[in-house]
Amino acid sequence: MNVLVINAGSSSLKYQLLDTKSGNVYAKGNCERIGIDGSFVGHEENGGEKQKLEVALPDHKTAIKHVFEILGQAGFDTDKIEGIGHRVVQGGWYFPESKVVTDETLGWVREVAPLAPLHNYAEADVIEICREMFPSIGNVIVADTSFHYGIPEKAHRYALPRDVVDKLHIRKYGAHGTSHRYVWRKTNEFLKGDVHKLVSCHLGSGASLSAIQDGKDMDTTMGLTPLDGLIMGTRCGTIDPATVCYLQREGGYSVDEVDTMMNKQGGMLALSGVSSDTRDIEEAANNGDENCQLAMEMFYYRTSQLIAEMAQSLHGFDTMVFTAGIGENSSSMRLGVAKELEWLGVKIDEEKNSVRSGEPRVISTDDSAVKVLVVPTNEELMIALDVEELLDK
Amino acid sequence: MNVLVINAGSSSLKYQLLDTKSGNVYAKGNCERIGIDGSFVGHEENGGEKQKLEVALPDHKTAIKHVFEILGQAGFDTDKIEGIGHRVVQGGWYFPESKVVTDETLGWVREVAPLAPLHNYAEADVIEICREMFPSIGNVIVADTSFHYGIPEKAHRYALPRDVVDKLHIRKYGAHGTSHRYVWRKTNEFLKGDVHKLVSCHLGSGASLSAIQDGKDMDTTMGLTPLDGLIMGTRCGTIDPATVCYLQREGGYSVDEVDTMMNKQGGMLALSGVSSDTRDIEEAANNGDENCQLAMEMFYYRTSQLIAEMAQSLHGFDTMVFTAGIGENSSSMRLGVAKELEWLGVKIDEEKNSVRSGEPRVISTDDSAVKVLVVPTNEELMIALDVEELLDK
Repeated sequence: MNVLVINAGSSSLKYQLLDTKSGNVYAKGNCERIGIDGSFVGHEENGGEKQKLEVALPDHKTAIKHVFEILGQAGFDTDKIEGIGHRVVQGGWYFPESKVVTDETLGWVREVAPLAPLHNYAEADVIEICREMFPSIGNVIVADTSFHYGIPEKAHRYALPRDVVDKLHIRKYGAHGTSHRYVWRKTNEFLKGDVHKLVSCHLGSGASLSAIQDGKDMDTTMGLTPLDGLIMGTRCGTIDPATVCYLQREGGYSVDEVDTMMNKQGGMLALSGVSSDTRDIEEAANNGDENCQLAMEMFYYRTSQLIAEMAQSLHGFDTMVFTAGIGENSSSMRLGVAKELEWLGVKIDEEKNSVRSGEPRVISTDDSAVKVLVVPTNEELMIALDVEELLDK
Repeated sequence: MNVLVINAGSSSLKYQLLDTKSGNVYAKGNCERIGIDGSFVGHEENGGEKQKLEVALPDHKTAIKHVFEILGQAGFDTDKIEGIGHRVVQGGWYFPESKVVTDETLGWVREVAPLAPLHNYAEADVIEICREMFPSIGNVIVADTSFHYGIPEKAHRYALPRDVVDKLHIRKYGAHGTSHRYVWRKTNEFLKGDVHKLVSCHLGSGASLSAIQDGKDMDTTMGLTPLDGLIMGTRCGTIDPATVCYLQREGGYSVDEVDTMMNKQGGMLALSGVSSDTRDIEEAANNGDENCQLAMEMFYYRTSQLIAEMAQSLHGFDTMVFTAGIGENSSSMRLGVAKELEWLGVKIDEEKNSVRSGEPRVISTDDSAVKVLVVPTNEELMIALDVEELLDK
């Protein structure tokens, strides 16, 4: 089945056209600066060179028109696209699994938008545009929170007054669920079913862990929002929640300023003072920059602490997987995290770890108590597979 | 040395007169409802019955006068009191260890008060009153944060912009430091020096963990404030810090209301809907109350997760100690926490665990990889010992 996967942000829109059977990506690209001067579309086909097309993209509707035009020029007319999968950041309490778009399900995306206002409204608008422009193509909502929805109540409930929690739907929702779900599935396939207690480490500029028992998510490090948990590119991760009150009272910051500080000006960027990109930070650390050295240390420290937390929620772990930008590409950072976990039986084979590859692979020693793998994530394929399952009758 | 230990709150004042050599407590008591109608002093001597004296306590000065009067009647005139130790909740960046009261050190208690406004101002006032009323007696400040001040930077730094963090002195300060320090010292004495990686579990209505390597604190679960970490009697513990922003924006709560919600209306009280006292909750859980059952489950779940985090920061642990109200008195809750940790080599001897005692004792099996103990804490003695060390020339 040919599925178009769309991942819309407030001023961007990523797309990928792929075949669910082969996983082959026919075309992919990104529309950037939608509604802002200097907008463009980056596009590539069949693994070819990326072309940059400077076009006016006053709104998401224009962006989608351009995407379909480009795909048509590449031989994929509308009638060859058999389904559209929409990544939705926050599914709230309505999406324990992916769902076909209807008036009702689309309404739900908007209803839960206060939990992720920067994303859900734009995503809902794009879904609506796709339905109107191409009424013959089915649309599916794949929420990034779905995989975490079923985690046990003891792991997702917040110890705040029940009336407040109920009224405002406060709980741990997590994120990166589509990636963690793909990782579990792929790892289980690769290890031929011999994976039971898996800690999935999605380490990118956003980063989260997931504790997965036989395919069921038991806990995750992100919380009500994707701010919580690990130290990320620009996000501070878990800190005393009273810090927010203190910053407002003693620092005189507004709630929005604190929010921005924690989400956009914190994390590795704040620690390093150099960059939110761990490649830059690692290089500077190697050149003696002390703030960058501390940032790297803290990344290893907090990541390993939260891996221990996830392992605790499973009462042990037999498998650990690294994925996403850092997890797939940085052998030194994988090693840095894994070394902290030696006392739990994690042993990395440094030679295997140093090999670059786009394929799933084991990087632990044969006698490691915990099997450690690198499994490249593929959220788009996971989304497309959901589309196929829901639309292919 | 006879030391009077004072623990002042905004409307209360606890005191204890003890001998540092024997640890013998001559007298202790508490002044309650200072500045509020219905104030009284509860007092007991040499382990005898508690007397309740209804007296007007319009301010802390009157309360202290009463304390010294009562102590005088009991045979402890001012000249028999050789030092006063003041527990200070927040020592900020000035108290890596206890210090004798001078104009300068007293000023520091007030300078760092914005970090703990409900406590430090009252404590500073009481110190000042003691100096004025009894100029011949030396005063010592024992900050509850001191023990945590030296934890590695990677464990205490927050990933927020450095200028903000520096200006507002934001970091992990922790609390219960005097208790954790006492626990390490007593455990080390009891095990004759055979304790290296200790996770100290101070579980009371306030609760925190400390990861201690050969007497040095390496990490702790409380943060900038005592809100962070474990689920406590009325405190929610660690939650996504963005929850504070969400509650203000979507719930319409003020920052003070959110603060109160997290500190006074959250935790076991919010989860159980019954009480902040785990004895009530456990009883209701045993009688089938589902919210109380969940509250107990969450307590075990989060406590064990954070014990795993502390063990991670030590790369393993050889000793775990339970202390404070719950830790010393609830065999079932000790067992509930310890059972979660079996995969890490924790094995409780249920018979040993069920014995009630005021003495330090081992409650793990002989083949447990981690030695588990109950060690009754004694913050007052720890404070008095600091007073002795600093004043006894």
